[in-house]
Amino acid sequence: MIQPRTLKGFRDFLPEAMMPREWVIDTARRVFRSFGFCPIDTPTLEYLDILSGKGGTESDKQLYHFEDHGGRQVGMRFDLTVPLARFAAQHIAKLGTPFKRYHIATVWRGENTQRGRYREFMQCDFDTIGTTSIAADIETVLVIHDLFRALRHDGFTIHVNNRKVLTGLLENIGIADRAAPVLRALDKLTKIGHDKVAQEMIENANITSRQARDVLKLAEISESFSPRDAGAENQRILGAVEPLVEGSETGQAGLAALRELIEATDRAGMPPEHLWIDVSIARGLDYYTSTVYETFLGQLPGIGSVCSGGRYDNLAGLYTKQPLPGVGASLGLDRLLAAMDELGMLPRTITTAQVFIPFFDKDRLADYLGLAALVRGEMFRDSGSQTPEEVAVDVAATPINVEVFPEPKRLGQQLKYADRKGFRVALIAGSRELDNRECQVKDLASGGTMVVSLDDKEHLVATVRKVLESNAVERNT
Amino acid sequence: MIQPRTLKGFRDFLPEAMMPREWVIDTARRVFRSFGFCPIDTPTLEYLDILSGKGGTESDKQLYHFEDHGGRQVGMRFDLTVPLARFAAQHIAKLGTPFKRYHIATVWRGENTQRGRYREFMQCDFDTIGTTSIAADIETVLVIHDLFRALRHDGFTIHVNNRKVLTGLLENIGIADRAAPVLRALDKLTKIGHDKVAQEMIENANITSRQARDVLKLAEISESFSPRDAGAENQRILGAVEPLVEGSETGQAGLAALRELIEATDRAGMPPEHLWIDVSIARGLDYYTSTVYETFLGQLPGIGSVCSGGRYDNLAGLYTKQPLPGVGASLGLDRLLAAMDELGMLPRTITTAQVFIPFFDKDRLADYLGLAALVRGEMFRDSGSQTPEEVAVDVAATPINVEVFPEPKRLGQQLKYADRKGFRVALIAGSRELDNRECQVKDLASGGTMVVSLDDKEHLVATVRKVLESNAVERNT
Repeated sequence: MIQPRTLKGFRDFLPEAMMPREWVIDTARRVFRSFGFCPIDTPTLEYLDILSGKGGTESDKQLYHFEDHGGRQVGMRFDLTVPLARFAAQHIAKLGTPFKRYHIATVWRGENTQRGRYREFMQCDFDTIGTTSIAADIETVLVIHDLFRALRHDGFTIHVNNRKVLTGLLENIGIADRAAPVLRALDKLTKIGHDKVAQEMIENANITSRQARDVLKLAEISESFSPRDAGAENQRILGAVEPLVEGSETGQAGLAALRELIEATDRAGMPPEHLWIDVSIARGLDYYTSTVYETFLGQLPGIGSVCSGGRYDNLAGLYTKQPLPGVGASLGLDRLLAAMDELGMLPRTITTAQVFIPFFDKDRLADYLGLAALVRGEMFRDSGSQTPEEVAVDVAATPINVEVFPEPKRLGQQLKYADRKGFRVALIAGSRELDNRECQVKDLASGGTMVVSLDDKEHLVATVRKVLESNAVERNT
Repeated sequence: MIQPRTLKGFRDFLPEAMMPREWVIDTARRVFRSFGFCPIDTPTLEYLDILSGKGGTESDKQLYHFEDHGGRQVGMRFDLTVPLARFAAQHIAKLGTPFKRYHIATVWRGENTQRGRYREFMQCDFDTIGTTSIAADIETVLVIHDLFRALRHDGFTIHVNNRKVLTGLLENIGIADRAAPVLRALDKLTKIGHDKVAQEMIENANITSRQARDVLKLAEISESFSPRDAGAENQRILGAVEPLVEGSETGQAGLAALRELIEATDRAGMPPEHLWIDVSIARGLDYYTSTVYETFLGQLPGIGSVCSGGRYDNLAGLYTKQPLPGVGASLGLDRLLAAMDELGMLPRTITTAQVFIPFFDKDRLADYLGLAALVRGEMFRDSGSQTPEEVAVDVAATPINVEVFPEPKRLGQQLKYADRKGFRVALIAGSRELDNRECQVKDLASGGTMVVSLDDKEHLVATVRKVLESNAVERNT
């Protein structure tokens, strides 16, 4: 006998965990698609030299790699950015630009499993490649906004900065040549606080304490923000930044881009309270060159950013001479799900079906299966004239999913099963009801029942829908 | 510079390949859910002893395995059945029975890449665990039926057999002890023909040529089948099998199960032409013990079965003493997509959005982004009272996806982009139109245009929908 067990840092997803994951992933896909982003996928395994790229970095140490059956050195992807870079370099002539892709896939990192980190987790990335237009930067904010609205969050804030503003400031205080270590330290502001950031800048970037103070002065401008007054707050922040980047062409360009982004998202109809110009965020990664994004949940800011990204000048410099600028962001699926769980935003049902049919009379199995087919509906039957990309998201109404219990056990036992799973309606019929062509529609929340004819299919389905509508609200509180 | 390239046997999926994949996967999920199957997921990497199980098999040789950072011997899953067995053994007390799960995930096999085989491919499995009731066997047929209907196939046939019928025959001809090699040979009937199957049986199972002939006589019963006359054909087949299993209790039980399955699927409303009692199929895998399924496309029978499975007595005997009977099937995603491509059933568009908005006037970006938001609609805004599992599949109507071109290039150039991608409607507005609060709605199939007010949102959206409805049909021919 082999002991059934999973590897440390790896997870089984039982239905109660998997259903919310599928919901978040589906929602992300729907939102990405609503802006014209298209799905791609790349192999799990890549040649090791593709993945280790520049080499010697933290990710290299965490890489799962081995020699395959053909003697090749291969590795498992540790993010979706490196595969995107390789993919874009290889296929861009065929893809054309602008190329808008989303990629929702698993990645692996053999890192420490402390602090809720996993060795296998999912990333949801979207990017617009091949354009330097700020239209794509603005759209990225709109996508993040629609995504969190679709995920039924309302107190979220998208923090936006522009690296050029930081560069402008660093130019003005004479430390532009040490941007990388300065920004890496600044990026830790919310985690380790002012003093330690200042100390790290002084030590690692070799700047004076006065210069460190000047950098932190900029960061302080965005320290407070009142979402209710977002429009005026953001104007105040931009106004306070202005003198600090005066005289720097780069800094001015960054500031102008932020102004344009605020104005356009506002005019495009996005509520201003979700956008916060936060000049303290830098994003640790070296390749961001302009707009950067982080997203925080108002009720749980401490968990950190749940959707982050930015603009880069050159995605795939390691693989092609063709410059590929782009902008995008990545949804932190695991972190978001943990947050939503903590906030009680995830349902406790463990069934995909709303309707339960007990196998009541042992001789009438076919009747129960037929009743299930009838209520489940015709949703798949009349889609002949649609193209697949429409059918993918087209259901005339919420489908009614129906489960038939497979064994003619005692009714009480079957209803106990239904209760544990969280079904909301039961259709109950013994042989007498079936002979009379009728069944009971039982509201499993209220316990109320109605008797409905099996011959009036539309009335039956409408009755089930009515119960589902009435007890959906109750369950969601 | 590193040469961008992929490993042999591994594939990049560009949008035109990925969109149909997502459509098939979504459809499978919708159908599985409509019967109450719930999603699960398991780790890509498992302890090697879990995966190699009995050891020494073909799959072991193909297994990708290595030593991880912690010195553990680990492997990448090569199917979804072994992980399901390990998962069920580990969690069944919590899951309860019947446990109905689907699992759609990638698997890896380092096998030869000839004949369109890949080293990385996706499996879509669904199973009902923990019941021996024939209700689950019957439901499996209904699921396969609904799945292929939902995938817009009509000429498909689900071949069903029961291993007990074969066992009964083997008992009657005195070779029940050599069932495994006999059935392994029989399973190759369509591939290598009668003579070679007989030869293999005689050689590998050590039976006489007369016994081989008797086995093949059974298989011949199902050799011809006319779907138009399916009901009578299946009765003819069952009638012809009857004398061959007479006197064998097992054989009679198998025959009775097939009869019940035909009757119940018929009474549950499934059109009989999709079901073929095919007593020649055995399924090579040793663990099937009762009902077995294969599914063939009428227009492309030669590609083999696109959805196969069966009933097993004991899923997880390697990992637990608790017997876990079950029944299920697996959709061959890659094979099916290849077939649908060959049959011209896949669309040629390479965009997820139907509507294109050119960036016409360089000063009006926010107007275009706002127009896109307006047409994209409110689908994510009013879902407050729904639970996630409902929202997952609930859209009031087909969403309208809208892409805004990110750069103010010449209109002709932008429309060329739209044409190449396959957008179906363009919303065109210069500064004069925007000042007049109107835009052109252009049918990109017919070239026809209408001018519509931007202030009457409902009329605008209705106009776009009308064009989409009219040119959807044209495009699908």
